[in-house]
Amino acid sequence: MKALVLGGDGFCGWPTSLHLAAEGYAVTIADNLSRRAIADDLGAPSLTPIRSIEDRVTAARNVGDVQFSHLDVTDPVALKALLGTLEPDVIVHFAEQRSAPYSMLGDAQRRYTVANNVNGTNTLFSALVELGQRPHVVHLGTMGVYGYSDDLGELQEGYLDVRVAQTGRDVTIGYPANPGSIYHLTKCLDHTLMQFYAKNWQFQITDLHQGIVWGTDSEITSSDEALINRFDYDGEYGTVLNRLVSQAAVGHPLTVYGTGGQSRAFIHISDTARCVHLATGAPPDPGAQVQVFNQVAEVRNVGALARMIAERTGAEVSYLDNPRKEAAANQLRVSNAGLRSLGFEPRTLEDSLMDEISATVGRYKDRLNRDVIFSKARW
Amino acid sequence: MKALVLGGDGFCGWPTSLHLAAEGYAVTIADNLSRRAIADDLGAPSLTPIRSIEDRVTAARNVGDVQFSHLDVTDPVALKALLGTLEPDVIVHFAEQRSAPYSMLGDAQRRYTVANNVNGTNTLFSALVELGQRPHVVHLGTMGVYGYSDDLGELQEGYLDVRVAQTGRDVTIGYPANPGSIYHLTKCLDHTLMQFYAKNWQFQITDLHQGIVWGTDSEITSSDEALINRFDYDGEYGTVLNRLVSQAAVGHPLTVYGTGGQSRAFIHISDTARCVHLATGAPPDPGAQVQVFNQVAEVRNVGALARMIAERTGAEVSYLDNPRKEAAANQLRVSNAGLRSLGFEPRTLEDSLMDEISATVGRYKDRLNRDVIFSKARW
Repeated sequence: MKALVLGGDGFCGWPTSLHLAAEGYAVTIADNLSRRAIADDLGAPSLTPIRSIEDRVTAARNVGDVQFSHLDVTDPVALKALLGTLEPDVIVHFAEQRSAPYSMLGDAQRRYTVANNVNGTNTLFSALVELGQRPHVVHLGTMGVYGYSDDLGELQEGYLDVRVAQTGRDVTIGYPANPGSIYHLTKCLDHTLMQFYAKNWQFQITDLHQGIVWGTDSEITSSDEALINRFDYDGEYGTVLNRLVSQAAVGHPLTVYGTGGQSRAFIHISDTARCVHLATGAPPDPGAQVQVFNQVAEVRNVGALARMIAERTGAEVSYLDNPRKEAAANQLRVSNAGLRSLGFEPRTLEDSLMDEISATVGRYKDRLNRDVIFSKARW
Repeated sequence: MKALVLGGDGFCGWPTSLHLAAEGYAVTIADNLSRRAIADDLGAPSLTPIRSIEDRVTAARNVGDVQFSHLDVTDPVALKALLGTLEPDVIVHFAEQRSAPYSMLGDAQRRYTVANNVNGTNTLFSALVELGQRPHVVHLGTMGVYGYSDDLGELQEGYLDVRVAQTGRDVTIGYPANPGSIYHLTKCLDHTLMQFYAKNWQFQITDLHQGIVWGTDSEITSSDEALINRFDYDGEYGTVLNRLVSQAAVGHPLTVYGTGGQSRAFIHISDTARCVHLATGAPPDPGAQVQVFNQVAEVRNVGALARMIAERTGAEVSYLDNPRKEAAANQLRVSNAGLRSLGFEPRTLEDSLMDEISATVGRYKDRLNRDVIFSKARW
């Protein structure tokens, strides 16, 4: 089985590519290395000393069959050439700008995020239509497409049962899009776009509405220095739990936005890789609606997380004016029945896993740039 | 009051620009003349001998205050320069690739339609955020965003009242997106994008979900040869009623897709101009959800329309295999209460208006290229 991983050099893409290779897929990573370039621009390269993609791929040959193609997914000529040669059985699509704060920095970032993410997804599907290829496409979405309204109950997987007031008919609809940033918006747009491709051209598509990823390494990336995963701690790309643990490790107050009353869904990076692998093996029927899995392990309250880390480490919690426009507090409930039915057993937040992050940060803390801890984005 | 009309050289944009000028707006048309370029590429230039934009604008000075800026809306530098100088009070956004069949021709057209329409809309709003400008933005949408399911009852204006099965709560949601082509998809994406800009940056936005436009001229465009509106009869850009009347005028069988059982919403071109003018004067509150008006005059059955024209003209009706994926038949009901409440009195399908089209086609029929009557697009 041939897997093409678009964006396979990134934080989630890299451990997932290795996991798929270890599970026996012939993996081709396609990436334009934009995550590295943006990190350099922001003065916030990976805290961990990640290797060049060439060195990574050389080391990955000990894990399985891994190839690399330097490619921008928004470039239709290059993408069609690769697809034509490779004829992948499954495509995993991580090749999107994935930071909400980055997408809210300014005009250039708003335009880049929309152009890269939406045009990239459209270029991919349009190329597949032209080539007559129908691989299963697994797209990384986000829990942020649902918004955080308490009106909707426990969030089901992509579809909502409602009764239409005017006609009294019971219908199942896609959840109303309710994004909280330009980044989240692009995942809503991708989803609508993929629904049309599935309907009109009988694609098999899975959209993984993923929670906030935490942790740094998987078993495979920690097995060899040359395979080490990237780790972001900055205000733009550091995800909340990783940011808090990093701050504690360098004696910085833990920065919580607003009251910390936000409930959010979380998943460990090694579970990301496992869930994507499970999803690749379970395509929906051709022409069915997009299959949605909520790729989450558990729900946690952000303020409680910060207080827990403060207790463990002696760090202070600093409550900042929330730079985002979001509800001060919410109660999130999420179903992850789909992936569980495929065998997903979530790794939940344990001390040992947090110790792993602390150890990583401790080891590389001389590389940490304190100037980038605060997000510069304002909603 | 200063109005910026993006796409003001097109079929709907041109008569609307003139109407706004006649109503006292200082009008700046911004257009990259892409409609003319695509028509040339397809071998289907306007049947009517439209003048150069320079000659049009010179003649338009007899109507009111009209300026022209040659500009691509996806070019952020040029767009911000224009907005910075002009500081418009209202922006009417027609600057999108507007043909469903064209958007379905192939890979290049799918990518162009998404990139032009979605990036253009995002470039516009992102520029306005950067400049701190909050003009009322009136966007041309389409009735095609709703799809044609009979489950939803009479289509209300943008929002649907439902009861959530799981929680029993009554909520009002945006209509589920159900586009029938890549073109219609882009209007769904635009709508979601505008909802986010309205919510996050307190824009005042009106989305006009327009029916199929028919007719050729408004009172103003027919008052001066130099102001004549474009007229498209080809399979890609000719709208259904205009195509049928053109076919009859040159002795071609009337081409109906499938059974002709499709019900669709229609509006006359002069009503488009009037409705947009009404909408410009009725912005929603800043930060409110996007205001939606269904910009339609009446609903007609496509097959019945063809038979009516056949009866008037003696033409034959030719039922073709439907190149589109759509329901063979549907019952459409649409509310247009919003624009009616602002004073809209629809012009419905009358013989005199169809005679006007026939006369236009008759006058210029030597310019008609029979090779482009059939659509080349297949869904």
